[in-house]
Amino acid sequence: MTRTTDVTQPLRIALAGLGTVGAGVIRLLESNAELVTARAGRPLQIVAVSARDRSRDRGVDLTPYDWVDDMTEMAARDDVDVVVELVGGSDGPALALARNATGHGKAFVTANKAMIAHHGLELAAAAESAGTSLKFEAAVAGGIPVVKGLREGAAANAIEKIYGILNGTANYILSTMEDSGADFGATLKDAQELGYAEADPTFDIEGVDAAHKLAILAAIAFGSRVNFDAVQCEGISRVRAADIAQADALGYVIRLIGMADVETAQDGARALLQEVKPCLVPKGHPLANVTGATNAVVAEGNFSGRLLFQGAGAGDGPTASAVVADLIDIARGETGAPFSVPSDSLEAVQPAHSGHRIGQAYLRFAVTDKPGVLAEITAAMRDAEVSIESLIQQGRANHGGEVLVAMVTHHGPESGVSKAIELLRDSASLTAPPLVMRILED
Amino acid sequence: MTRTTDVTQPLRIALAGLGTVGAGVIRLLESNAELVTARAGRPLQIVAVSARDRSRDRGVDLTPYDWVDDMTEMAARDDVDVVVELVGGSDGPALALARNATGHGKAFVTANKAMIAHHGLELAAAAESAGTSLKFEAAVAGGIPVVKGLREGAAANAIEKIYGILNGTANYILSTMEDSGADFGATLKDAQELGYAEADPTFDIEGVDAAHKLAILAAIAFGSRVNFDAVQCEGISRVRAADIAQADALGYVIRLIGMADVETAQDGARALLQEVKPCLVPKGHPLANVTGATNAVVAEGNFSGRLLFQGAGAGDGPTASAVVADLIDIARGETGAPFSVPSDSLEAVQPAHSGHRIGQAYLRFAVTDKPGVLAEITAAMRDAEVSIESLIQQGRANHGGEVLVAMVTHHGPESGVSKAIELLRDSASLTAPPLVMRILED
Repeated sequence: MTRTTDVTQPLRIALAGLGTVGAGVIRLLESNAELVTARAGRPLQIVAVSARDRSRDRGVDLTPYDWVDDMTEMAARDDVDVVVELVGGSDGPALALARNATGHGKAFVTANKAMIAHHGLELAAAAESAGTSLKFEAAVAGGIPVVKGLREGAAANAIEKIYGILNGTANYILSTMEDSGADFGATLKDAQELGYAEADPTFDIEGVDAAHKLAILAAIAFGSRVNFDAVQCEGISRVRAADIAQADALGYVIRLIGMADVETAQDGARALLQEVKPCLVPKGHPLANVTGATNAVVAEGNFSGRLLFQGAGAGDGPTASAVVADLIDIARGETGAPFSVPSDSLEAVQPAHSGHRIGQAYLRFAVTDKPGVLAEITAAMRDAEVSIESLIQQGRANHGGEVLVAMVTHHGPESGVSKAIELLRDSASLTAPPLVMRILED
Repeated sequence: MTRTTDVTQPLRIALAGLGTVGAGVIRLLESNAELVTARAGRPLQIVAVSARDRSRDRGVDLTPYDWVDDMTEMAARDDVDVVVELVGGSDGPALALARNATGHGKAFVTANKAMIAHHGLELAAAAESAGTSLKFEAAVAGGIPVVKGLREGAAANAIEKIYGILNGTANYILSTMEDSGADFGATLKDAQELGYAEADPTFDIEGVDAAHKLAILAAIAFGSRVNFDAVQCEGISRVRAADIAQADALGYVIRLIGMADVETAQDGARALLQEVKPCLVPKGHPLANVTGATNAVVAEGNFSGRLLFQGAGAGDGPTASAVVADLIDIARGETGAPFSVPSDSLEAVQPAHSGHRIGQAYLRFAVTDKPGVLAEITAAMRDAEVSIESLIQQGRANHGGEVLVAMVTHHGPESGVSKAIELLRDSASLTAPPLVMRILED
């Protein structure tokens, strides 16, 4: 195959979606025009824009660009080299536009993590067979060049594990709870008022958004087919102020961690574990110091060792930075398989189960304050062969006779912990389902 | 211009230098062969190797490769696409090989920071005019893809500042001093015995190695001509255990920081500040948590905000990871200007002086324990209009009447601190030159 790219003409861009990120892209291309042209080797020129509402004031001047009412039409224009999609939504107009763009042989750049998590394989195959680019740096961890870091920077490595803080809203809430001692509900409400959480925060706090990003990263890291449905996902809404205080006393902070690794299943084939869960992170670990809306991703390569990429995980500026980095790559003529290897060689890896993993866990029980409860819990631990490293029963709280029992286990199989929880499932002593969090190794 | 690359044939490599990194590259290409081929789109095939001593056992099998006695000859071979130089040294055989390779239109990959800091512009120009690649990811911060992160990942941004921990040996010594309370000399000796410091540690502890890396990063970040000679460089050999203890009490750690930014000089032109100096880093700052031989680089972009890249800064595995990442880029047909923009458009930016910068500083005086010394020092501060935020005089130490006076200034011009030091220059009370360290902002 011989790859030929004309890199003297301006790169002509159609921009769909003019929310904060779309306006940010326009602002960036205006204010950094000279250096972007120098680095890209040619001008990046927006020719057409499209959004739902033409009349809205977005703080940027749209008069230099053709306004297009039906965004899917932009993909067919002869004067467009690349379509940038900042509309959002895993399906609908965004997907129609993506299909239309690759179908017309246009390069396609998107910040749409839901769409790539659900339809990335189809779109990559379409881009590859059209000999064009599909790029989505902005879909994962905002302004952090982690897709590039994995796909290119760490390309020489077998990745052993990839994990990180992939959702700024959840991290903002957890680190704010840490600072204030406030409970989840109150902190979420404040975060919503300050604009750090959306009116419907479900995707962020229940880990769905992080799961989209994790599924994308896992495919690049492990050469596996994107498999969002296999991500085991648990959010942060059950984390209490008392858990954070308890973790702190034990030398940990709590973070919502997306984690993926590959192991060998019982049949000898590869199995991919993908999890988004709140975890206890030792205070000396780089991820423990990631506070506020910051994102951070760790990739452990078999030659590179531990690589950390950290920065702003959202926001118009950082996201625009990632979108335009993709455009500069395209302008430079740098293409290649979106998921590092051709999409038809990505492997369908079976999902792994975490039960036989060995590690330490934090367990917290909310129980009725009555005699015998502690004996009941510790008996379940014994019967499940879970060895307890430390246990704290907190004095009576002010919500009516409920007390908390928190413990940290010794290293052992996670299946033991699951069994203990199962044994206690029907206990009349529990006032809420137990909270189990893995302890991240240092 | 139309760029054409044949990406179906194996990429044929000549490898010069078979020390630990060279052997690491061979080991990596052997053990990760399948995934490297899949990601590169074609095999990476070593055809020839060269080193000084053919008989030495390097723990890898060299029989599959042609042995070449005169390494510069490798560049002329028709069966070689890319030359990898892992010999080291800013001039001599490494430079001769680099010139010969680009002269023959071969791509060239190197881990040689000294050579790129001194001759990078010449070599980039030669590679550009030959239409081939010059790549040096491994020259900066070992396995961390920070050259790529800046050149591509952050390419959409005007970089406002770049700074970081660029030397693992110095960071190992400082963080070990932190843990042990031991003094510099003893810690260096231990580090040498453990293999963390070389027999002649000058380049590492006096900041020269970090300055090489900083000069390379600054050129990419600011579009300026590489100017190693303009780096203001100060090492860590004067940092005492007492400074680290004092910094700790004030909420800081001490790190050897390489820092570069661009400001507007008095004549309106751009001026580039490049400094390698020990600094006080607030404990909440990401760089404060970087311990041992780890490296970390922060780039602050005008749209991305603060980006952090962290990982192993040296070692055969991480360095090999970076070398092979460059080879995969070349195999994929991804070329482009080594310093992000064509070398003839890099600007000759004048060096900046730090005198008028505003900030806080830590000053430490070693003085004879006699009446009036404190008055003398504080009078000098007053006369230089330096405002003191806190001051500690430590009780008599056990080296013969010497006591330490440490202080932190309020925000103010660095020129004031320099003036105060100048006023005290001939003081008979000082038993050692004062130590001044900038305090990094959070």
